Amino acid sequence: MARLFERAVLIGIGHIGSSLARVIRRDGLAGTLATLDNNPAHRAKALDLGIVDIATADAAEAVTGADLVVLATPIGTYDALARAIAPHLAPGAIVSDVGSVKMAAINDIGPHLPAGVHFVPGHPIAGTEHSGPEAGFAELFRGRWCILTPPEGTDADAVARVTALWESAGSTVEVMEAQHHDRVLAITSHLPHLIAYTIVGTATDLETTLQQEVIKFSASGFRDFTRIAASDPVMWRDIFLNNREAVLDVLQRFTEDLTALQRAIRWGEGDKLQDLFTRTRAIRRSIIDARQA
Amino acid sequence: MARLFERAVLIGIGHIGSSLARVIRRDGLAGTLATLDNNPAHRAKALDLGIVDIATADAAEAVTGADLVVLATPIGTYDALARAIAPHLAPGAIVSDVGSVKMAAINDIGPHLPAGVHFVPGHPIAGTEHSGPEAGFAELFRGRWCILTPPEGTDADAVARVTALWESAGSTVEVMEAQHHDRVLAITSHLPHLIAYTIVGTATDLETTLQQEVIKFSASGFRDFTRIAASDPVMWRDIFLNNREAVLDVLQRFTEDLTALQRAIRWGEGDKLQDLFTRTRAIRRSIIDARQA
Repeated sequence: MARLFERAVLIGIGHIGSSLARVIRRDGLAGTLATLDNNPAHRAKALDLGIVDIATADAAEAVTGADLVVLATPIGTYDALARAIAPHLAPGAIVSDVGSVKMAAINDIGPHLPAGVHFVPGHPIAGTEHSGPEAGFAELFRGRWCILTPPEGTDADAVARVTALWESAGSTVEVMEAQHHDRVLAITSHLPHLIAYTIVGTATDLETTLQQEVIKFSASGFRDFTRIAASDPVMWRDIFLNNREAVLDVLQRFTEDLTALQRAIRWGEGDKLQDLFTRTRAIRRSIIDARQA
Repeated sequence: MARLFERAVLIGIGHIGSSLARVIRRDGLAGTLATLDNNPAHRAKALDLGIVDIATADAAEAVTGADLVVLATPIGTYDALARAIAPHLAPGAIVSDVGSVKMAAINDIGPHLPAGVHFVPGHPIAGTEHSGPEAGFAELFRGRWCILTPPEGTDADAVARVTALWESAGSTVEVMEAQHHDRVLAITSHLPHLIAYTIVGTATDLETTLQQEVIKFSASGFRDFTRIAASDPVMWRDIFLNNREAVLDVLQRFTEDLTALQRAIRWGEGDKLQDLFTRTRAIRRSIIDARQA
């Protein structure tokens, strides 16, 4: 693959940032690769792994001369980071991110960027429940979707270069409006995580003996929830706080549906249960057909 | 492994029944292996696969002369099946089952069994979302738990022989009270399935365009729920109807916890979210340590 950028900067070298670093390294996509990360252990690890050339906690040092800057930190850090890097960005530079809420990215980063800097918000639909630079791997994005939500009027060449980056990672890029993205992800990702966190939390509140048995017999269904309820706490806190309206809306629908099921169980309405369980089986089939299983 | 039974009968040759049939065959645990199944396609398939010697829809033909009978059908069939087989059971025969609600097994099967027949209810904590005789495999039970809930005073030798059967399948057997089993499984299995069915149902009610996107971007969390929401509809209908009190109790706890999280999101209480998400991560660690991940 040809070099896409002279100097690429990843802000945050955790699970996603370090996976992207490995892609950029493997494919020679950048002349120089730097990370801006305020965690000394992460900086040391990234240098140790040889996945970046430069690791610093200084915004000016990191982004000066960069033609690509990708934020890969929890959404709650965006505003302060955008303020910190903005004075050091040159016209023509591209700023992107990998966050799970795109309206928040646009609202928190966009206003701080100087004229001539191109902003292409992004969201790779990939990840595991693990965190930190050592948990990353270049194949993380292969066969997955990456959604870009460039505001109207964004430079087409900038969008094309960010697209090329993700295609090099093995992803298929889809462009959509930020608000629509946030609504889709509220149901496909944010609500499932919220539910998983809740049910695992409910189990932790049981008396100790029962809690041990929950762990022991978790293969009966519970463990499928624990994997996603092990995702990064700060990252997920920020997702819920920043996609509040969409999450509360789908949560309301979910609660209504759950209440209806609760009532069907209480009154022994077996047909209603069986009807729903038959419909949900078909959805699984669609996911297998779409090769996302 | 030595032969444990002269004539074993599996009632229902679906996913679990056919998996157990494969174990019995592989290890030579029974002289003759028969299945009683009212689905002609399942009977033909079972004979075709060579996993049983006899496949019939006639209760008398199936169980006459049997020293082991295992019910592996939805719980809602237990009462009628117990009535049908009872007249043909000889003293000394063992009756067991693989159902997910043990009080219902005891209430629906127990009263019909003639004196001298030993009843050892069981529940292998194993399964996939697939159904039917072709979906079974002998390794399904390896490394998993099997819970037995023999009523007080059950013949110790009968319990030992059922234990030997499951140990031959590679499972670790645990004996507990039926009521306690139902409470533990309500949280580890029944509630997770109910939640998964609900959230997948909520997604199927979205407008068509959004539904397609939910499938497309399901890797972001949603697909983890669709696997368990693809489990057998009739089997699960019967589980909820037969473990009503325990399920409604844990569902109530879950709903309270979810409401608290909803409120935290609405009011921007990030600390509460982060605290919970940190606690749930520790539970995942426990499951990995218990080698049930």
